[in-house]
Amino acid sequence: MFIIGELINGMYKNIGGAIKEKNKSVIQKCALDQAKCGADALDINCGPASRRPVDDIKWLVEAVQEVTDKPLALDSSKPEVIESGLSVLKNKAIINSTTADPEKLQALVPLAKKYNAKLIGLTISAKGIPQNKDQRLELAAAIVAGCMELDFPIDNLYLDPIVMPVNVAQSQMKDILEVIREFKIISEPAPKSIVGLSNVSQGTCERGLVNRTFLTMACGFGLDAAILDPMDKELMNAAITAELILNKQIYCDSYLDAYRKR
Amino acid sequence: MFIIGELINGMYKNIGGAIKEKNKSVIQKCALDQAKCGADALDINCGPASRRPVDDIKWLVEAVQEVTDKPLALDSSKPEVIESGLSVLKNKAIINSTTADPEKLQALVPLAKKYNAKLIGLTISAKGIPQNKDQRLELAAAIVAGCMELDFPIDNLYLDPIVMPVNVAQSQMKDILEVIREFKIISEPAPKSIVGLSNVSQGTCERGLVNRTFLTMACGFGLDAAILDPMDKELMNAAITAELILNKQIYCDSYLDAYRKR
Repeated sequence: MFIIGELINGMYKNIGGAIKEKNKSVIQKCALDQAKCGADALDINCGPASRRPVDDIKWLVEAVQEVTDKPLALDSSKPEVIESGLSVLKNKAIINSTTADPEKLQALVPLAKKYNAKLIGLTISAKGIPQNKDQRLELAAAIVAGCMELDFPIDNLYLDPIVMPVNVAQSQMKDILEVIREFKIISEPAPKSIVGLSNVSQGTCERGLVNRTFLTMACGFGLDAAILDPMDKELMNAAITAELILNKQIYCDSYLDAYRKR
Repeated sequence: MFIIGELINGMYKNIGGAIKEKNKSVIQKCALDQAKCGADALDINCGPASRRPVDDIKWLVEAVQEVTDKPLALDSSKPEVIESGLSVLKNKAIINSTTADPEKLQALVPLAKKYNAKLIGLTISAKGIPQNKDQRLELAAAIVAGCMELDFPIDNLYLDPIVMPVNVAQSQMKDILEVIREFKIISEPAPKSIVGLSNVSQGTCERGLVNRTFLTMACGFGLDAAILDPMDKELMNAAITAELILNKQIYCDSYLDAYRKR
């Protein structure tokens, strides 16, 4: 599974403070810590409190790529913020994210092509969050169609079914898992799947347990990638072991360490 | 998920010793401990060292049903041992197990009918352990057909795909998970599915992690029941949380305790 570390996000106090004070070392330590724990890429999000996200994302990208060459997922709902990050990015790029709305697709798909970036597509639209599997599939198909129209390579597209908190939308969880499998039959080559994991446990008393249980099940349904906290060792152990069971890495007694050192 | 506690098995030193010395209190404590941790039923196995399994299983059944009315899974490869256990059993019965071999089916299916017992059918035959999904499905279909011929109610049949150790048969794990889902399409009503869990981690260095990761994934594939160690709290927490995500119990902040106290 392709793991995107979620921790460089201005909504976290330490990161928000570091952005405000332009304190590179906090950001760089967070980047290196996540990479060490097994993150394949790092999410970069200025957070809701950033007053100048177009500038802040540049500063974040530059700070992070001084210490790691991991791909960076530029995370904003504003295309101009993503474009600003891309303008200074030397590492591989992931655009996080487009929605199924035509104006978003028209802004972001060409950017993804221009920068040879992977693109995350949320199955959401101006109408809101889908409430069942069919609505999710419909929005997924719209994103795939939008990408195809603009000749974007579909194997660089990661569809996100929008994971809801289990204590709010319990009846939707199975749909969300099943749609991960069904994304694969939308096109050939198939789009990949991704989840923003932490939302599943929002407001619950057993966040770690809920996160790793959902992630493990999602792996069984063919999940390709996740945005999560790679410093959560039990979560990473669950993800690595799920990959092992799916025969995606060869068994050895020290398979957990072997994965992290790969 | 229907949880069958695996610990009353003569292969464990304490239980083997208690059977030999006819020490009821060890057996009864083991029964009560498992029930307290959330087991829905208890496996009863005299173990390979028992010289008089036909007598020992009677003694075990009588000892256990003095302290609990949980269903008991009479676990032996010998039909005469199972029949002996059934002859003294007052609690609900589970026969563990038949294979796909006609002589086993002819011996055990009528017994299951006579005692209104659930029946576990291993997808295995005299030819050995199946090596892929198709062989497992073929044996499963043979068991279902054997049960139907004898008018055994298929919703009392639990098919076991034979879980192999991940360090020995890593390439078969995905087949084993997928066949759990495919068991459901063999007949209408559908047979249920069960795994003997611990085998998946045999010989690995991370037994608990491998067990709970496999079980969580199997839940996603529709697993109905498992024979496992209910005293493994992390394993039970994973199973309970998987059920929660699949909307099989209502969310509350104390859902783990609520499950155990149900």
